[in-house]
Amino acid sequence: MLVTFGETALRLSPPGAERLETTRRLQVQAAGPESNAAIAARRLGTPATWMSRLPDTPLGRRVASELRGYDLDVEVSWGDGRQGLSFFEHGPTPRGDRRVDDRLDSAATTLTMDDIPVNRVKDADAAYLTGATPALSTDLAGASARFLKTAADNGALTAFSVSHRPWLWSGEEAGELLTQFFSAVDLFVATEAELAAVLDRGGQPAELAHGVASAHDFEYVAIPRERTCVLWHDATVHEYPNPDVDVTDPSGRDDAFAGALVAALLDDEDPQDALRRAIAARALATTVPGAVPTVDPESVAELAEQVDKPRG
Amino acid sequence: MLVTFGETALRLSPPGAERLETTRRLQVQAAGPESNAAIAARRLGTPATWMSRLPDTPLGRRVASELRGYDLDVEVSWGDGRQGLSFFEHGPTPRGDRRVDDRLDSAATTLTMDDIPVNRVKDADAAYLTGATPALSTDLAGASARFLKTAADNGALTAFSVSHRPWLWSGEEAGELLTQFFSAVDLFVATEAELAAVLDRGGQPAELAHGVASAHDFEYVAIPRERTCVLWHDATVHEYPNPDVDVTDPSGRDDAFAGALVAALLDDEDPQDALRRAIAARALATTVPGAVPTVDPESVAELAEQVDKPRG
Amino acid sequence: MLVTFGETALRLSPPGAERLETTRRLQVQAAGPESNAAIAARRLGTPATWMSRLPDTPLGRRVASELRGYDLDVEVSWGDGRQGLSFFEHGPTPRGDRRVDDRLDSAATTLTMDDIPVNRVKDADAAYLTGATPALSTDLAGASARFLKTAADNGALTAFSVSHRPWLWSGEEAGELLTQFFSAVDLFVATEAELAAVLDRGGQPAELAHGVASAHDFEYVAIPRERTCVLWHDATVHEYPNPDVDVTDPSGRDDAFAGALVAALLDDEDPQDALRRAIAARALATTVPGAVPTVDPESVAELAEQVDKPRG
Amino acid sequence: MLVTFGETALRLSPPGAERLETTRRLQVQAAGPESNAAIAARRLGTPATWMSRLPDTPLGRRVASELRGYDLDVEVSWGDGRQGLSFFEHGPTPRGDRRVDDRLDSAATTLTMDDIPVNRVKDADAAYLTGATPALSTDLAGASARFLKTAADNGALTAFSVSHRPWLWSGEEAGELLTQFFSAVDLFVATEAELAAVLDRGGQPAELAHGVASAHDFEYVAIPRERTCVLWHDATVHEYPNPDVDVTDPSGRDDAFAGALVAALLDDEDPQDALRRAIAARALATTVPGAVPTVDPESVAELAEQVDKPRG
Amino acid sequence: MLVTFGETALRLSPPGAERLETTRRLQVQAAGPESNAAIAARRLGTPATWMSRLPDTPLGRRVASELRGYDLDVEVSWGDGRQGLSFFEHGPTPRGDRRVDDRLDSAATTLTMDDIPVNRVKDADAAYLTGATPALSTDLAGASARFLKTAADNGALTAFSVSHRPWLWSGEEAGELLTQFFSAVDLFVATEAELAAVLDRGGQPAELAHGVASAHDFEYVAIPRERTCVLWHDATVHEYPNPDVDVTDPSGRDDAFAGALVAALLDDEDPQDALRRAIAARALATTVPGAVPTVDPESVAELAEQVDKPRG
Amino acid sequence: MLVTFGETALRLSPPGAERLETTRRLQVQAAGPESNAAIAARRLGTPATWMSRLPDTPLGRRVASELRGYDLDVEVSWGDGRQGLSFFEHGPTPRGDRRVDDRLDSAATTLTMDDIPVNRVKDADAAYLTGATPALSTDLAGASARFLKTAADNGALTAFSVSHRPWLWSGEEAGELLTQFFSAVDLFVATEAELAAVLDRGGQPAELAHGVASAHDFEYVAIPRERTCVLWHDATVHEYPNPDVDVTDPSGRDDAFAGALVAALLDDEDPQDALRRAIAARALATTVPGAVPTVDPESVAELAEQVDKPRG
Repeated sequence: MLVTFGETALRLSPPGAERLETTRRLQVQAAGPESNAAIAARRLGTPATWMSRLPDTPLGRRVASELRGYDLDVEVSWGDGRQGLSFFEHGPTPRGDRRVDDRLDSAATTLTMDDIPVNRVKDADAAYLTGATPALSTDLAGASARFLKTAADNGALTAFSVSHRPWLWSGEEAGELLTQFFSAVDLFVATEAELAAVLDRGGQPAELAHGVASAHDFEYVAIPRERTCVLWHDATVHEYPNPDVDVTDPSGRDDAFAGALVAALLDDEDPQDALRRAIAARALATTVPGAVPTVDPESVAELAEQVDKPRG
Repeated sequence: MLVTFGETALRLSPPGAERLETTRRLQVQAAGPESNAAIAARRLGTPATWMSRLPDTPLGRRVASELRGYDLDVEVSWGDGRQGLSFFEHGPTPRGDRRVDDRLDSAATTLTMDDIPVNRVKDADAAYLTGATPALSTDLAGASARFLKTAADNGALTAFSVSHRPWLWSGEEAGELLTQFFSAVDLFVATEAELAAVLDRGGQPAELAHGVASAHDFEYVAIPRERTCVLWHDATVHEYPNPDVDVTDPSGRDDAFAGALVAALLDDEDPQDALRRAIAARALATTVPGAVPTVDPESVAELAEQVDKPRG
Repeated sequence: MLVTFGETALRLSPPGAERLETTRRLQVQAAGPESNAAIAARRLGTPATWMSRLPDTPLGRRVASELRGYDLDVEVSWGDGRQGLSFFEHGPTPRGDRRVDDRLDSAATTLTMDDIPVNRVKDADAAYLTGATPALSTDLAGASARFLKTAADNGALTAFSVSHRPWLWSGEEAGELLTQFFSAVDLFVATEAELAAVLDRGGQPAELAHGVASAHDFEYVAIPRERTCVLWHDATVHEYPNPDVDVTDPSGRDDAFAGALVAALLDDEDPQDALRRAIAARALATTVPGAVPTVDPESVAELAEQVDKPRG
Repeated sequence: MLVTFGETALRLSPPGAERLETTRRLQVQAAGPESNAAIAARRLGTPATWMSRLPDTPLGRRVASELRGYDLDVEVSWGDGRQGLSFFEHGPTPRGDRRVDDRLDSAATTLTMDDIPVNRVKDADAAYLTGATPALSTDLAGASARFLKTAADNGALTAFSVSHRPWLWSGEEAGELLTQFFSAVDLFVATEAELAAVLDRGGQPAELAHGVASAHDFEYVAIPRERTCVLWHDATVHEYPNPDVDVTDPSGRDDAFAGALVAALLDDEDPQDALRRAIAARALATTVPGAVPTVDPESVAELAEQVDKPRG
Repeated sequence: MLVTFGETALRLSPPGAERLETTRRLQVQAAGPESNAAIAARRLGTPATWMSRLPDTPLGRRVASELRGYDLDVEVSWGDGRQGLSFFEHGPTPRGDRRVDDRLDSAATTLTMDDIPVNRVKDADAAYLTGATPALSTDLAGASARFLKTAADNGALTAFSVSHRPWLWSGEEAGELLTQFFSAVDLFVATEAELAAVLDRGGQPAELAHGVASAHDFEYVAIPRERTCVLWHDATVHEYPNPDVDVTDPSGRDDAFAGALVAALLDDEDPQDALRRAIAARALATTVPGAVPTVDPESVAELAEQVDKPRG
Repeated sequence: MLVTFGETALRLSPPGAERLETTRRLQVQAAGPESNAAIAARRLGTPATWMSRLPDTPLGRRVASELRGYDLDVEVSWGDGRQGLSFFEHGPTPRGDRRVDDRLDSAATTLTMDDIPVNRVKDADAAYLTGATPALSTDLAGASARFLKTAADNGALTAFSVSHRPWLWSGEEAGELLTQFFSAVDLFVATEAELAAVLDRGGQPAELAHGVASAHDFEYVAIPRERTCVLWHDATVHEYPNPDVDVTDPSGRDDAFAGALVAALLDDEDPQDALRRAIAARALATTVPGAVPTVDPESVAELAEQVDKPRG
């Protein structure tokens, strides 16, 4: 069983390439980096629990309902505060996507470790957290530290994705806080851009992964990249090319990568197979509208087998 | 020229009778009590200016764009803060409508009189304000007082609608603050429920209107009601029945009533004609989806003529 | 086999109660008084041919395609000119429906009797025409006269519905022209308002029908009314109440009435049964969005049986 | 905890009053009499389990996902066979609703008691079944009998709603089979039409309820009716008027009634209060599009209090 | 006149790249390999008749109506049984399209040659059949054989497309049955994958076409391919490159190819021109949403002229 | 302040790649070459006035409302005549876009210079016109000449885009009339195809621009091209590559180019910077659905900086 916690916002996005400034219609979806990863893991067979605080309003209940529909075990501390919102406009090249994050004083920001069922964490086989959660409030930063430590102390595989949110804090601030969590982390996930911004590290992927692993004594370091993805484990770097994709919506693909990687490691797959599965889940997640990675286990397995094969 | 100011939120509503808790689509519209009234007046021929603060985001710009589309003169002080939101679920009887107001720390709440072009107020023929504006913040309460006083001092017809928002403040609190504005008000608009909640007044419409007018020395007192609407002026009470309506969306109908009444008085219509026009605008506003009263002058004129006639 | 001709426009209407002035979406449907009636007859089992001229553009072909989908035999003289359009806004009470007819120089207006397969008319069991067709152009007025005469000379049941279009011509003009057709007409259909405007006739339904029949020597006179419908035949007036309806869209209901009446008479139903069938078709047509009466024969038969029975 | 089982179909319906024969769009919802009732109970606070067999296809998984989204505990025996479908066309008066049931050889029909976790039934506080389930197959009829008996033997409140499906079997056939279940039933729910068709019983509601209760030794007999609803218990008949409703979609209202009644009895409400709650849930269910009764506990409680009060 | 018969299903597909498992909306279209080909031929000027059995339900009538709208002559034997359905999910690369065929016991499967107007077949200039039809039932296999033989005996151009459905039968089973039809076939259409699966033949296109033609004494052999299409006739192989396409929906493109090829041969085009026309129709069919090839004759002619020219 | 005049039609287009011939839905937008350019300029910070005649119908008012929403100053001479329409079908390659222009006798065609507020022209800093306007009627051709001359005489920057409409007139006709305007034009914009058709000029872009400038003594000549755009000024040709784009809708991109160029020159940008800005606006305009270039100043500025840099 995988356990995770964090904020899941309502994502409000105009259809197609319409603009926020002129649209009359918004599509609604419950999306968060941790719930996205948990959904990816769940769809690949791993039971998963998502914990958070939500406001007891139709908006908060909508988040819980949608996540339950993805078969997550949803543990909500119903509270005060707003429902976090994220207005998202998809802009084709060269316009670029545009996001208006609107999470001020959201209910999730007041969550502490006392608000969540700690036994779930103790019983978990794996615990997953992203840097987007401690970025939101001091309460959440404290809860994050205790969450990871509790899980680690009870023998869970602990996974952490940097998921840097530059509009919430600087890379330096993020680095200062997040490194305090690293001693409790087994699997560390970050993009090259995040490694540069938060840990001030660069270089070729292989050395980069090795350097990060050494510096913080991680068991696994995973780096999802544009053309390949990389996994370091036990002094070895594995790297496979990403499949060709006809992208519908790239949102949430790195969450899918992390969730699938954790699920594969829980299934005792060896690092190469786990990486291939994560690459496949990441690719398939981009074919689904919205940020939630509703991938199928069969498709992931089938595509994972083709990873690293020459393309037709 | 009519001048008004206040907050206009983005109204986000599921289509038809769908529920906020389960919907995947939201319709977007820029709606506020003052901009609604200004639009009603504008459509009946009165040039109208709406002033406010909006965040310089796609959401804030969307509000300005939509209001300009209704041919309002839009004077925005672009600022920080959120765009006010209002989630609105239409619930057929007996469910009832449901609103999740989400305006915490909205940009508009920090607006002061220094942020708006005071010459517009000085040059105006009429000024319109609702109680929903001072309810939002101390800044806005101060700006409201100065706005009404400036307009009154410069000879404008000043109109004030109670537009009580019980989720923002109690009737008692509202009454305490709002009565301070009354000396600068010529035309006072309130429903019977608002008169009870805010001024602690009840009774038959005629006496009620008379009592309110006497107590605060208003020139006009208008009371939109379920089956009739009432206008007191010069010691006389006028009352006409509302037309039969096949209601599509009742939101904004009292804003339409107030805006049309101001427009009619600016056109020098006598009280009876002005009331009939306001009644017609109110009835027509309920046939249009959303809260914005996009009524036609010809339809209003035609329907106003039929008011008080026996129904076929 | 029923044969008819006339113009069928593309009807462009905003969804629900949205306004033409503000909508961003229009629904498209091929609607015309003659094709509507032919569709009603076809759905009740009568083979039906619709003849007209359409422009050889995607818009004109769209009209032909949609009518074929209703199983009409479509005989098109492809020609120059525009596709007639009709912008239609549904306005709930008291707003009222609003129509922007846009048929200037439409292809249909240049149609003459030489453009249509006259054998179809000669072979027909019934021929149907409305006053909306001769109203459009001199060419069509000439074709209308020849169409009715040809059908009558060949023994068909000839049916004519006034379908007065006040925005095209005055009642007086209509009356002057249309009465010239009457000698070739067996079944005459008109509302009370049309009888007043075009024939300057009023009075109680029974006398009205009798008077019209006598004056023009019609075999049948049908008057669809708000609460009842009336059929005069052989010196007898039949009248039945309309069923209770929950109206979705009243457009086309009188076309459905006429088409169903013709179909029933072709089926040798007696006047009472035919009237009941027409009343049922008219009621059911109002439950379908748009102007095209896609009614079912079973539903019409079942409802016709209940006409004239006391309501539960 | 409430436990139920039965078939939940995908309901495919054209938007608004569009017709199946002409529509190009279908709305999709997972709807079944037992899952509907379980959802109503769940929303009023009662944990609820739904058990069934579904095909392991995107369609079957869609049913499970949607039901989980309503916070049901979903226990699926994934199997072969089709996903049951139900095409549903809403027809305003006088057209009437039209249903094309398409459930031939659906996966659910092969379900036996061996396929479901019997401990869930043994542990349940209440068990709910409808006559729609044994109507589908011999397997299901057998499972139905064992389900009710197991629950009764273990002390659960057993509830049964006739939910007669005349297109599946005759009233006589239904009566013959269903009466065999009655000895295991505590709460019996049926409409007057069902009592007539299946049990051949008629009369005034009070006597009818009493008669049914006596004949089969039920503890509770509930009869939802057009203007009132009735509950018999302990030799007493309770009857309250239904609230005024502005109906959006009546589907599923009697499922909501049954589910709410069971939930209220599990909450130890007295019969009058339970009936009022069920009446309120039934009324509110009709305001929601589709057949799934997504009612709110607060609204139900509030409306239940007003039941039996004189209407304003 | 072209005559064809086979099953046309209702294709139910989520909009865009949405998933069957999560969508709430399905788009509906009447699509079948034979009706698709007939529509392509009809749009290029060849009168075309489609014959089949449909259930007398709104769903069956919907199929007939839609096909009539494409100006096919629709000859339906209304019967019992279900309407065949095909749920179709478009999955961008690497997800792949997903189909849930749901045709068990569909009405069409019970069709025999006695149910269709044999004179239509005798009078036809061309007859078209696909392997998807005999795959559905023994009745249809028998009807298929008689259909092709009747047409051939009466001098029609007989065309057959393999249209292999691996989910209905194996390639071996298909090959065994279908080869029995070949003696009555003039024009044979198959993809390379189908030739491999059903006839166990491979190799370079030219030899492949030649080999197939020789083995079964076909007059024409056409092979639509990814980058080129091939037509063998009279010992000569013609091959042209496919135009560049921006694919909207590839479904039905090979049906369009076959239909256009038949139409061109009926127009006495020489093989090269006929192939170019078929290639053009195939390319244009992919630009239209859904499986129905609503191509224009002018566009096909214009594009056909550019086939084999160097690309700009 | 920029001033422009011309016809703005309602553009009616099916969603996505649907066909006019089969669609049931049309999207509505107010689009015209001059209003598009004015909107582009307005969004980049230049106040802009659009002048025209519109019919006083919901359709005409819709055009005015939508343009006001883009913050144009809209000066309408309300008049008789139709609202110009343009049915537009997007056809992916190789189908190609298809347009059914329907502007016969539109209100705009009767506009003369006497109908527009000439002081606006005299006070303008820049005046913009396209060849699409004089193409529509003799009245408009006369007004066009006077408009440009008035602006030039009053010291405005006069800009003219050929915007050739081959369905309205031949290149030769266009050339004959338009060259008469050239003496009053400072900035001349045309594509290579337009230069060939209207001025019978070809050649390499640099020489072409130089030749046109010399022949007509323009101050600036701009040529938007497929891969680059070119601006001639002061005997120098500037040329930059277009950015990579993921095209949503190319309509209106050259209007955006012209409008942005004028705005940049009014801002006293040097030719290179102005061209880069125009290139950026053109690229961004293609990412927005519809023909109206709702681009952002920040995005334009940011992308303009990247123009001419090597692509990553």
